Amino acid sequence: MSAREAASPLQLCRIMRPDDANIVGNVHGGIILKIIEEAGCIVSTRHCNTQNGDRCLAALVRVEKTEFLSPVFIGEVAHVTAEITYTSKHSLEVQVKVIAENILTGAKKLANKAALWYVPCSLQNVDKIMEVPPIKYASEDQEEEGRKRYEAQKMERLETKARIEEVVPSPPNPEDPPKEQYTVGFSQSTLIHLVGPSDCILHDYVHGGVTMKLMDEVAGIAAARHCNTNIVTASVDAINFHRKIRKGCVVTVTGRLTFVSNKSMEIEVLVDASSLTEEEKGKYRAVSAFFTFISLDKFNKPLPVPALKIEGEEEQRRFEEGKARYLQNKAKRLADKERQQ
Amino acid sequence: MSAREAASPLQLCRIMRPDDANIVGNVHGGIILKIIEEAGCIVSTRHCNTQNGDRCLAALVRVEKTEFLSPVFIGEVAHVTAEITYTSKHSLEVQVKVIAENILTGAKKLANKAALWYVPCSLQNVDKIMEVPPIKYASEDQEEEGRKRYEAQKMERLETKARIEEVVPSPPNPEDPPKEQYTVGFSQSTLIHLVGPSDCILHDYVHGGVTMKLMDEVAGIAAARHCNTNIVTASVDAINFHRKIRKGCVVTVTGRLTFVSNKSMEIEVLVDASSLTEEEKGKYRAVSAFFTFISLDKFNKPLPVPALKIEGEEEQRRFEEGKARYLQNKAKRLADKERQQ
Amino acid sequence: MSAREAASPLQLCRIMRPDDANIVGNVHGGIILKIIEEAGCIVSTRHCNTQNGDRCLAALVRVEKTEFLSPVFIGEVAHVTAEITYTSKHSLEVQVKVIAENILTGAKKLANKAALWYVPCSLQNVDKIMEVPPIKYASEDQEEEGRKRYEAQKMERLETKARIEEVVPSPPNPEDPPKEQYTVGFSQSTLIHLVGPSDCILHDYVHGGVTMKLMDEVAGIAAARHCNTNIVTASVDAINFHRKIRKGCVVTVTGRLTFVSNKSMEIEVLVDASSLTEEEKGKYRAVSAFFTFISLDKFNKPLPVPALKIEGEEEQRRFEEGKARYLQNKAKRLADKERQQ
Repeated sequence: MSAREAASPLQLCRIMRPDDANIVGNVHGGIILKIIEEAGCIVSTRHCNTQNGDRCLAALVRVEKTEFLSPVFIGEVAHVTAEITYTSKHSLEVQVKVIAENILTGAKKLANKAALWYVPCSLQNVDKIMEVPPIKYASEDQEEEGRKRYEAQKMERLETKARIEEVVPSPPNPEDPPKEQYTVGFSQSTLIHLVGPSDCILHDYVHGGVTMKLMDEVAGIAAARHCNTNIVTASVDAINFHRKIRKGCVVTVTGRLTFVSNKSMEIEVLVDASSLTEEEKGKYRAVSAFFTFISLDKFNKPLPVPALKIEGEEEQRRFEEGKARYLQNKAKRLADKERQQ
Repeated sequence: MSAREAASPLQLCRIMRPDDANIVGNVHGGIILKIIEEAGCIVSTRHCNTQNGDRCLAALVRVEKTEFLSPVFIGEVAHVTAEITYTSKHSLEVQVKVIAENILTGAKKLANKAALWYVPCSLQNVDKIMEVPPIKYASEDQEEEGRKRYEAQKMERLETKARIEEVVPSPPNPEDPPKEQYTVGFSQSTLIHLVGPSDCILHDYVHGGVTMKLMDEVAGIAAARHCNTNIVTASVDAINFHRKIRKGCVVTVTGRLTFVSNKSMEIEVLVDASSLTEEEKGKYRAVSAFFTFISLDKFNKPLPVPALKIEGEEEQRRFEEGKARYLQNKAKRLADKERQQ
Repeated sequence: MSAREAASPLQLCRIMRPDDANIVGNVHGGIILKIIEEAGCIVSTRHCNTQNGDRCLAALVRVEKTEFLSPVFIGEVAHVTAEITYTSKHSLEVQVKVIAENILTGAKKLANKAALWYVPCSLQNVDKIMEVPPIKYASEDQEEEGRKRYEAQKMERLETKARIEEVVPSPPNPEDPPKEQYTVGFSQSTLIHLVGPSDCILHDYVHGGVTMKLMDEVAGIAAARHCNTNIVTASVDAINFHRKIRKGCVVTVTGRLTFVSNKSMEIEVLVDASSLTEEEKGKYRAVSAFFTFISLDKFNKPLPVPALKIEGEEEQRRFEEGKARYLQNKAKRLADKERQQ
């Protein structure tokens, strides 16, 4: 394949699905950005592999400022064109254009234009940056303009690199002091989820199974943060679903360790829902439950779990309650075993 | 269809996919719970619609304590059997069994047994609870045992209902005071995402497009929380990707409003990554960027945005910087327009 | 837009993700079928809306027999080209070609060629079939060949329509004793899917590609159970879509082995749909088809397949019919080869 061919534009298209959009039907900007990057990654990885040497993957290092020029809706087809427009020794620029087509009316509109910079990393050693095969330019002017864009973005990347390294890796709220390891606060985790169409199939309300999946996810993250190992769900206490969660709500799911035995962790999971558009209803607790996780080694054998550092009366109370549940379950398991014998 | 037939067990199976599991190959408990609930919802919705009257959906109200008896792995087939085992006037119990089959060796193991309680809600009016058609029992004993389970769970649901309603709908950290509306803290949003196989296709590192999608998601939630309307992405400032994010990491994405003009909101999005299993590496800032959102009415026309209540010097400084970016972009747009004329 | 333009080919591409493949890395045939159908649906819906009158959606009514010519792997890019090749008054034929590209090595291979028939349904009233705008042909011969294909498929669709309505669907019975290995009952598999919003994008009816993906999944499970090895889709017999499936329906997909040769397995897949809430309408057979799978060793070389233990007259009859199809296809392949020499 000649350099010219390799650099030929790539076209991809995809129909916009209900899950790509908010409840009013507007496709999320993030979906458009993801498709743009997929096209950029394909065209630049393909180009960087048109030479001898290590096989490589083009890694995204920068996206230039981009404007969303027209909204895109469910059922429209997004046509994405990606073209390599400049190559330096170790990086390349891809310009991408997104046109949204309504296939029922034939109407087309420009939805987005973006410029992305990629760097080829060796698949043998990701820290090794490969050389980029040069492209041919239609004119000297074109090459010169590309060089200017290259210099400008290089300078900006260096500047922000300096700035980002100043920032102390920080919890969401930078005023909070960092938490000590093995405390409840250290592993406490929160996720938010915007309820989408596939979460509510028969109805406008979230299926209970969707909520339980999110609960298990956040409990698993809290457990893994506590013990830094492979963890699996061992059991779930009874869960009551008191309040329904409607499509378009934001669900906040928080997991925090309450009790730790020698070989298991109990995580309390709280699910709060709030409507983004019906302000008056406020935030409400929809579900809560206790998940028990165990830590496994690479042969799937249980590992000991680090002790939990308790801070304050509230945590102490929750720990005692967790211990009572743990002892009760243990007694029940023993009784069941005896009965079976 | 007679009541007898409608109550006949439901069998479904699904193969476990890479995205259902953690990086070691263990299927997440949450995936199993989600499949269990799907089977329960189908069998009970079908049963409750075998009579005249409003069409209805069975809504999950309770899951009994459940144990994960054996781990399930990618490539195994989960066989789920769901059977209605008790009906009261307004609720029904479904017992579900999950058997995991290794289709390469033929080995089967019991992975989970669960009991779920559903209540039929009218599709015309979700607050109207419908009656449940009775099932036939194999014996009087069977019916009697079901009645006992029904009474026991009813009592527990009432108890936790009282308890849950005491709980003040609260922020993740219940010690924090609630935030005042229109402040930065009020709309600040954080999501966590566990990097899975489909986020890293060619490599063990997250594709940039996946990160941008998460960034847009959290920015959109912060924007919607601030103005309680339909919001869309208007533009994204240049984004630099300084550090790669590896498979198995937890990504924490935080969005906070920095500046608000009459018709737009600027949201700063911070992406931090941390490995769950390689403790030494700690948490690091991988990406940060500014997203601009606008608020739309139902005809997709821009709406005014509520002013941002600034608290403290840090927020004031970020507001001024955001204002400078806003004015600079506005000047640039005007210059571009003039040049084109 | 002129008729000429509208009928211009459509190109789409997508990178293959871990979730698209089995644990050995082979992309499922069902994923390829789903992408093929997405391209076919876009190009034909776009074409049928290039005229005045009701806006319409092209609904898939038939896929011609298709062979999977080369396996596709995770990380490869599937390039799909779809072109309208014949139009009758009320239907149109789309020919689709799938080329898999390894963007690391530049290697390309033809993965699949398929022909799909669509019928335009009005979005106001799905039972109203619209007229199809005619395309221009490069030559009279081309048009004449298209007309022959049209007549042939029309006759076959009428025939299978009569046949499909006889079949009585039989539900699985979990009380039955365990089946002996290598019997039809041993590997028979059923999968249940609740039709969600993303299965029905432009309409309230399931896209044909979604159904084909489910069919391939269940056929693959049945095949793997029979031979306990890595299996891949080798070909799919012509599929006719007789009845539409609506959002909110439960789809039951059953796969059972009908015939086994030395190196291949034929699996009959039956798709039944039923509404959960409108039980009176009953369950109906929506689609049925024959999939052929082969068993591979770890070097992707074909393995011998265990013989099928036949029980009863019904199974014997289906086996004979499968054998006839197998011999007919083999004869056809030989004839094609001779003609090419």
